[in-house]
Amino acid sequence: MVDDAQELELSPDAEDEAEAYRLNKKAVASILYAVEIDDAAKLTELMEPLHAADIADLLEQISAFERTKLIRLYDREFDGEILSELDESIREEVVAILTPEVLSDAVRDMDSDDVVDLIEDLEDAQAETILGALEDADRVAVEQALTYPEYSAGRLMQREVVMAPEHWTVGEVIDHLRATPEEDLPDQFYHIVMVDPRLHPVGNVTLGKLMRSKRATPMRDILEDTFQIIPALRDEGDVAYAFNQYHLISAPVVDDEGRLIGVITIDDAMSVLDEEHEEDILRLAGVGEGSLSDRVIETTKQRLPWLAVNLLTAIAASMVISQFEAAITQIVALAVLMPIVASMGGNAGTQSLTVAVRAIATRDLTGSNVWRVIRRECLVGLVNGLIFAIIMGIVGILWFGSPALGYVIATAMVINMVVAGLAGTGIPILLERFGVDPALASGAFVTTVTDVVGFFAFLGLAAAVLL
Amino acid sequence: MVDDAQELELSPDAEDEAEAYRLNKKAVASILYAVEIDDAAKLTELMEPLHAADIADLLEQISAFERTKLIRLYDREFDGEILSELDESIREEVVAILTPEVLSDAVRDMDSDDVVDLIEDLEDAQAETILGALEDADRVAVEQALTYPEYSAGRLMQREVVMAPEHWTVGEVIDHLRATPEEDLPDQFYHIVMVDPRLHPVGNVTLGKLMRSKRATPMRDILEDTFQIIPALRDEGDVAYAFNQYHLISAPVVDDEGRLIGVITIDDAMSVLDEEHEEDILRLAGVGEGSLSDRVIETTKQRLPWLAVNLLTAIAASMVISQFEAAITQIVALAVLMPIVASMGGNAGTQSLTVAVRAIATRDLTGSNVWRVIRRECLVGLVNGLIFAIIMGIVGILWFGSPALGYVIATAMVINMVVAGLAGTGIPILLERFGVDPALASGAFVTTVTDVVGFFAFLGLAAAVLL
Repeated sequence: MVDDAQELELSPDAEDEAEAYRLNKKAVASILYAVEIDDAAKLTELMEPLHAADIADLLEQISAFERTKLIRLYDREFDGEILSELDESIREEVVAILTPEVLSDAVRDMDSDDVVDLIEDLEDAQAETILGALEDADRVAVEQALTYPEYSAGRLMQREVVMAPEHWTVGEVIDHLRATPEEDLPDQFYHIVMVDPRLHPVGNVTLGKLMRSKRATPMRDILEDTFQIIPALRDEGDVAYAFNQYHLISAPVVDDEGRLIGVITIDDAMSVLDEEHEEDILRLAGVGEGSLSDRVIETTKQRLPWLAVNLLTAIAASMVISQFEAAITQIVALAVLMPIVASMGGNAGTQSLTVAVRAIATRDLTGSNVWRVIRRECLVGLVNGLIFAIIMGIVGILWFGSPALGYVIATAMVINMVVAGLAGTGIPILLERFGVDPALASGAFVTTVTDVVGFFAFLGLAAAVLL
Repeated sequence: MVDDAQELELSPDAEDEAEAYRLNKKAVASILYAVEIDDAAKLTELMEPLHAADIADLLEQISAFERTKLIRLYDREFDGEILSELDESIREEVVAILTPEVLSDAVRDMDSDDVVDLIEDLEDAQAETILGALEDADRVAVEQALTYPEYSAGRLMQREVVMAPEHWTVGEVIDHLRATPEEDLPDQFYHIVMVDPRLHPVGNVTLGKLMRSKRATPMRDILEDTFQIIPALRDEGDVAYAFNQYHLISAPVVDDEGRLIGVITIDDAMSVLDEEHEEDILRLAGVGEGSLSDRVIETTKQRLPWLAVNLLTAIAASMVISQFEAAITQIVALAVLMPIVASMGGNAGTQSLTVAVRAIATRDLTGSNVWRVIRRECLVGLVNGLIFAIIMGIVGILWFGSPALGYVIATAMVINMVVAGLAGTGIPILLERFGVDPALASGAFVTTVTDVVGFFAFLGLAAAVLL
């Protein structure tokens, strides 16, 4: 059945574009009310028009207490797809609430790649229950997929592939497809993968082209121009990059010997791209793997390491300041102004850093342009440094009535902003060369550099010039 | 022809996964050498195996001088797709280098939605040249698309749709498809959109299902379960969200009256998702719209506003410090330690902020859970604050030999980190309510709060307790 009512459910006021695809507050309230009064029929009726992805979002947004009650009441209708869509942190909890029968029913309908995605994050006991519920063929497929490393193309691919020998004609392929039993074909497929006798993929033919070609046309005459073969061990982030870069819709996955073993489709690549971005953003902010549904204690643990690193950084900066205690005692204005120099450097450094980290992730920062990029960032730091040096020089004179103080803060500002451009670009490049994820570690290093240089340049110059 | 040599070109050493899909340094050097010695034949030979997206990356990564020389030499082979793939900042420059004849040839092969994407960012004169080069039908299609607002579904969609009346059978659709001239069908399509007599879309049928169904099967019996209709004025970010959330492959676009006017496919949605993420990351770091290929002067301008805001923030914090000059003169350790409190608060605030901004973007932070999320962030701030308060209390005692100083810094730390959790979550939520992009503006506000509160709590407590 077509549920085009769904959008209406989610955003009743089509005019209000800001609310598009957002869970309707009223709908959520009605659902929670049905849960509260234990009205299973009403609950089923309210949940019916919702997509599994929206039900998953709903489960993530309500409290743990409401979640348990809702799932117990909704038990029988519980669909495997909801489990796939759930955030990891909630998934284990939900799997534990479901009765073994409901869980078995739910996973039996799922594609093998979705089952893999579901159980790879579960505890062993839960994973065993789910594996046990599968039919033999599906279980073997899932267990084989799990032999590939996490985050590899082998885990991401689906094993159901529609393939044909390279010498076939359009008519032969169509007849073969019509003769294949429904359950042996993937749910969704967009290409026929043409293979040579050793099962090496040689090209893709889109279904659209297949349908409008004459029956006698050799398949090799209507192969797609763009064709990318993906090794099973390739990192899923690289796979997502290739889909985005080459506008792929599906791509064959091969084993060590180049034999076709599966296919990855764009919707899976899109999910990976989304996750990788999310990870980059969170890592840049030092948040790790966190999600909104994590408990306080987990979130605290995730954020602690980054804050600890920041504490060390801050103490290092403080030690620089403590070298100039004498100067500060004589001119207290130094203590007032010094955070400005450090803060401007830190911000300029974060700007350069973010651009560099993204450019590395999108393969736009390479050996060919690394020096040009570093030079450019330093120049940008210099120009912005000069502009803010003039402003701060004036502020120094007006606020503290000391041209010399103005001159010192202006010079320190220029120095720190050029260093910020250099460190913001150079540090992520170096970390990447040494195999460390630049999104994860660069921030702490860059801030340390701009804090230390900022305080040292300002206080050092002040001590030399003003005392 | 199938260019499966392409991957080899890009990453000659298949074992080296870190280099997957990266432009090969040697290949780039050979290309630049061919350009230097003016060897057009060699250049064409070297460029031939490269995908348009890789050529665009290459053009972005070399210097402006090399770019001009390369394009002049490669002139005749220049493909429209390269233009689509180029970064905006480079595009205008490249269009200006191409001769009108080459440009006309290049754009005539492009799909209308790609032409729209190309010319919407060009200067009027350049856009006119390109429009003039198109055939009449294409020009009308492009001009119609341009009547929709930028970043709307209407701009993103392609106008070529494969549709059929809802009462047709599989056989009728297949016959119709085979009878349609090749040039009237889109390059790639995955669904047949079924429409009612008023041209309202009622469902999608995948080509895979069409091919394996009997000729007599009514199309309405094999409609897909998930079906989303997209209004032409919907924001492209919401469209990308819907594709990702509901795993759509293509979705029909309708006008005000619900009539089918085009279709959006997942590859376009994937590009938008990628751009939106990029924008969020850059905005969080205060970088605006920047890209690596921008010139120094443009980059400086993009980054200046954020740095100016930061300067105001820093000055506000300095004014708080200046209220406590007397205390600092008496106890210079205060100047040494005060940046630690502010910095820890700033980092904790950025963590909460980033999680909140992403949760708003992914519709995970809604009316139903906003208070629970704020409470959680404050609790996380409290727990982490207590942990670091103990550490800093000890540092204060060991470093400065003053238990009272340790107590002051510990208390200030707890206060600032709870405030960081509150401000980091509350500010983006408030900004979003007022229709301001939280990714763009929250950072400055949150840092102001944590700096001001950090300095005030620490210095104020010190003045009260220690003097």
